[in-house]
Amino acid sequence: MTIHTAVQPQATGVFATLYAQVQQFYAHQMQLLDLGECERWAATFTEDATFDVPTLPEPVVGRAALATATSRTAAQLAANGTRHRHFVGMFDVAEQPDGTVGVRSYAIVYASQIGGESQVHRVCVCDDVLVRVSGGLQVATRRVTRDDLA
Amino acid sequence: MTIHTAVQPQATGVFATLYAQVQQFYAHQMQLLDLGECERWAATFTEDATFDVPTLPEPVVGRAALATATSRTAAQLAANGTRHRHFVGMFDVAEQPDGTVGVRSYAIVYASQIGGESQVHRVCVCDDVLVRVSGGLQVATRRVTRDDLA
Amino acid sequence: MTIHTAVQPQATGVFATLYAQVQQFYAHQMQLLDLGECERWAATFTEDATFDVPTLPEPVVGRAALATATSRTAAQLAANGTRHRHFVGMFDVAEQPDGTVGVRSYAIVYASQIGGESQVHRVCVCDDVLVRVSGGLQVATRRVTRDDLA
Repeated sequence: MTIHTAVQPQATGVFATLYAQVQQFYAHQMQLLDLGECERWAATFTEDATFDVPTLPEPVVGRAALATATSRTAAQLAANGTRHRHFVGMFDVAEQPDGTVGVRSYAIVYASQIGGESQVHRVCVCDDVLVRVSGGLQVATRRVTRDDLA
Repeated sequence: MTIHTAVQPQATGVFATLYAQVQQFYAHQMQLLDLGECERWAATFTEDATFDVPTLPEPVVGRAALATATSRTAAQLAANGTRHRHFVGMFDVAEQPDGTVGVRSYAIVYASQIGGESQVHRVCVCDDVLVRVSGGLQVATRRVTRDDLA
Repeated sequence: MTIHTAVQPQATGVFATLYAQVQQFYAHQMQLLDLGECERWAATFTEDATFDVPTLPEPVVGRAALATATSRTAAQLAANGTRHRHFVGMFDVAEQPDGTVGVRSYAIVYASQIGGESQVHRVCVCDDVLVRVSGGLQVATRRVTRDDLA
């Protein structure tokens, strides 16, 4: 768990620019995931990104593995007539001395049964390190924890 | 479904200014709706706006019709002792070549029974075209889909 | 209930800077609360802040009382094997003539039973007055209402 403690120049235009960019990045990334656009979603990570979530037995490394893992989930959801939405917010953003960007956020996953009900599926905390690349941001490492697990 | 694909200058102060304005616009607009301020809510749309939601049999056009439709809903909620909150976020914002602003967002509707429980009511995707007017933004077209409907 | 009505210069870099600062402030503050960092959470309020929530019999005043009240809640949650997350958003931000910042937002509280389910616990509206201090923002007054209460 990385709760950011550094004093930040948060009342500046530079911070506001970064903050908007981070929000736009997550909105776009999660919408790609929920649309089942697995290749485009994987491309929002670095080539050698690590992705550590409690639903997978070990961390996933690299874009190809990321796309495979999420394609499988997308296929299962479609077979079950279920839709997921990842609603991410509460971004605690801290630029690091090495130029990376630490982002600790909350991610609520909603599940809807087509022809049925919508409900909260998971409540997660998402701890990311983002890097700046030509054209925007990418996730270098992501570590997700689920509130319902010990 | 409009998932934005254009390369955007998202690391600029201009984008940050637009992004904050968009967020403030939605926050204020949805708070007006949930307060039952139907006329003021309708005034956040263009005069000839179209509003297409699955709960209405056909698209609503224009402010007067918008105010009427939401007044009816507000009256039903009050009669049932129910409160709704529209929590919108995950804004994927893309300025269009014609100067309009495309915004694809997630909208979670929470329902609370007064003296009872709170729960997720609907999970929606909201696909809007905003226009810039003197004094701010207005919705020109809104298309809402619900995750629980085919 | 304070729904902001003043005409705001929302399409400016100054507003964007404030809006990002406000979002970062709430994200960090609520994450501290959910982590049980009660002293650090209390330090995000002014020394003589008032905190009025329906779950407490009377308004809490001052940092020491704030830390005590939330420590008690944190201990009860831990004893019950329950985790809470306060997901705040929909910020309607209005700078006031006296230099304070009015923020009306929605706060959804999620509850997860460790080894069990996650669900919506509370749907709240949070009406704050923030003040600017050296180093950032602080809450001077907070008034929370719950949608399930009359």
